[in-house]
Amino acid sequence: MISTRGYAAMTAKAALQPFSFERRDVGSQDVLIRITHCGICHSDIHQARDEWGGSIFPMVPGHEIAGTVTQVGSAVKKFKTGDSVGVGCFVDSCRSCPACQEGLEQYCEAGMVLTYSGRDKNGRTTQGGYSTQIVVDENYVLRIPQPLSSAGAAPLLCAGITTYSPLRHWGVGKYHKLAVVGLGGLGHMAVKIARALGTEVTVLSTSERKRKDADRLGAADFALTSQPETFTRLRRHFDFVLDTVSAPHDYNAHVNLLKTDGTMILVGAPDRPTPLEPFPLIMHRRRIAGSVIGGIRETQEMLDFCAEHRIESDVEVIPIQQVNEAYERVVKGDVRFRFVIDLTSLQEAGH
Amino acid sequence: MISTRGYAAMTAKAALQPFSFERRDVGSQDVLIRITHCGICHSDIHQARDEWGGSIFPMVPGHEIAGTVTQVGSAVKKFKTGDSVGVGCFVDSCRSCPACQEGLEQYCEAGMVLTYSGRDKNGRTTQGGYSTQIVVDENYVLRIPQPLSSAGAAPLLCAGITTYSPLRHWGVGKYHKLAVVGLGGLGHMAVKIARALGTEVTVLSTSERKRKDADRLGAADFALTSQPETFTRLRRHFDFVLDTVSAPHDYNAHVNLLKTDGTMILVGAPDRPTPLEPFPLIMHRRRIAGSVIGGIRETQEMLDFCAEHRIESDVEVIPIQQVNEAYERVVKGDVRFRFVIDLTSLQEAGH
Repeated sequence: MISTRGYAAMTAKAALQPFSFERRDVGSQDVLIRITHCGICHSDIHQARDEWGGSIFPMVPGHEIAGTVTQVGSAVKKFKTGDSVGVGCFVDSCRSCPACQEGLEQYCEAGMVLTYSGRDKNGRTTQGGYSTQIVVDENYVLRIPQPLSSAGAAPLLCAGITTYSPLRHWGVGKYHKLAVVGLGGLGHMAVKIARALGTEVTVLSTSERKRKDADRLGAADFALTSQPETFTRLRRHFDFVLDTVSAPHDYNAHVNLLKTDGTMILVGAPDRPTPLEPFPLIMHRRRIAGSVIGGIRETQEMLDFCAEHRIESDVEVIPIQQVNEAYERVVKGDVRFRFVIDLTSLQEAGH
Repeated sequence: MISTRGYAAMTAKAALQPFSFERRDVGSQDVLIRITHCGICHSDIHQARDEWGGSIFPMVPGHEIAGTVTQVGSAVKKFKTGDSVGVGCFVDSCRSCPACQEGLEQYCEAGMVLTYSGRDKNGRTTQGGYSTQIVVDENYVLRIPQPLSSAGAAPLLCAGITTYSPLRHWGVGKYHKLAVVGLGGLGHMAVKIARALGTEVTVLSTSERKRKDADRLGAADFALTSQPETFTRLRRHFDFVLDTVSAPHDYNAHVNLLKTDGTMILVGAPDRPTPLEPFPLIMHRRRIAGSVIGGIRETQEMLDFCAEHRIESDVEVIPIQQVNEAYERVVKGDVRFRFVIDLTSLQEAGH
């Protein structure tokens, strides 16, 4: 077993605190990764606080992991010591269901093995990236290509793929008009990726503060969802609405911004049901769809795409000792646009 | 002007009663149709009772119209006296928007001119098919091919196209598993059409009484939505769910019957919003879509398809003098599966 240090929530009510635990030994197909950076995803907070139910404690959160390979198993073919690599939201899946066979491991019929707060095939609790190192099967490890930085690439493993996958799946591209709802960790990645795909992007936000950022990120337009005028001016304007907001809000108003045959894609997940009016869907053959992260193959494609287009996440790098303050700021929406933990702060702390 | 007799709702609270009114003269592009049969659609009742708002009174309902051409305008090219024809839910549209240009008149950006309770281009109130005759622009008239009967074909103009269009649009066919929710006027057409497309159909219903009908119509399976066991047994079973139910019900339970990438299509429209849970959509990239009737070109295609496959609606033919009782029975779900008014009862009555 491999002694590992991290920060963990010991219970749903507790602040994160230093925590020592063991990783499995490096198996023949495994890669040992020294973690350099790990993004703070809002879902880390939901799960550390057991707001979705089913959390396993103690929990070391973190599924936006970037680091360097320090050891490989005897049968590993894809990676070697020194490689820059990443790990996203899952570290295994059944590998045999139709979804896995298609490279859609995120929709594995047996359920993916989550990077943390999950159970692996041997029934061991998985622990995430707020830690010094991690052992992962090479088939679930991504290559982080040049010139991406470790800190700027880490959030691509969740926020990046969560927005890239639906944009690609629905073929969003040139000549399309896209509304991105919410300009946070997911939203800012959606704008960058959609712009690189040649799409005309409008940012819809509750906050006037985001107008400048939207402009800087390349959005063609910005509108406040707090203003009713937005929903008349932009009525039937968009081919797609990508909704990244995880606070409850009015889906119907956003559906009405779609043209006939338009699709609204949910990647943010409010924890309460939202009233859905059938008529706005029916009268213009519109759709509401959901999408979650992406498979391993598509995640690699996304990383390569981001490298080619020089796309990284806008990050604020913090030492792990500030993780609890960072959580409070994420909950208040006070981050542009992703906190990333510099794990050298933990390597060096040596507690 | 052409004197016409019909049955009308004089107000939202009133029973239908005999009513005389005038049709426009037959213009150069118009076809005069002697109506032989008109289906009773549940939406006739909603509108006659102003349950959706915006109803115009006096209102002669009816948009499942079958009849015979008795006169054509000087420029009419497609029809001649004696032709068997039909008229559906709309009698005109703007003809110039992208939707109209694509043959999707049902999604006309200016709004279709509804067959009744609408306003035509000259601002005149439109009146529907519970009447002796109707004048319609030839471009909005359908040909009813042999061997379809007038009574059995009339409901195809709404119930038929409402189910045919989404099945075709989403490419439902062989090797697909389809759930049809609700076995009424729409549902029974959906089963017939989907079977003709080679699809494996399961009927989901609240009523055990419908089991035999489902079997007779060719459904492979039948399950009661009142039994929780249905939602475990058929979890992730279907490629498509076609939901024809217009009473409020739980969308989320039905979404969970879809495979990954499955689509639930709403063609029934509850008059209240339904709570939508985002997770069942997100975790399997599922979609909820809406669809309404079909364009003229596709409606003709549907009629030709039904003729080829010998598909008619199962109807109970009544004289117009029984329309108010029929309305009560429709509201109670006591019809297999469509009432059709025999308009000779009105032609002969001479009220």
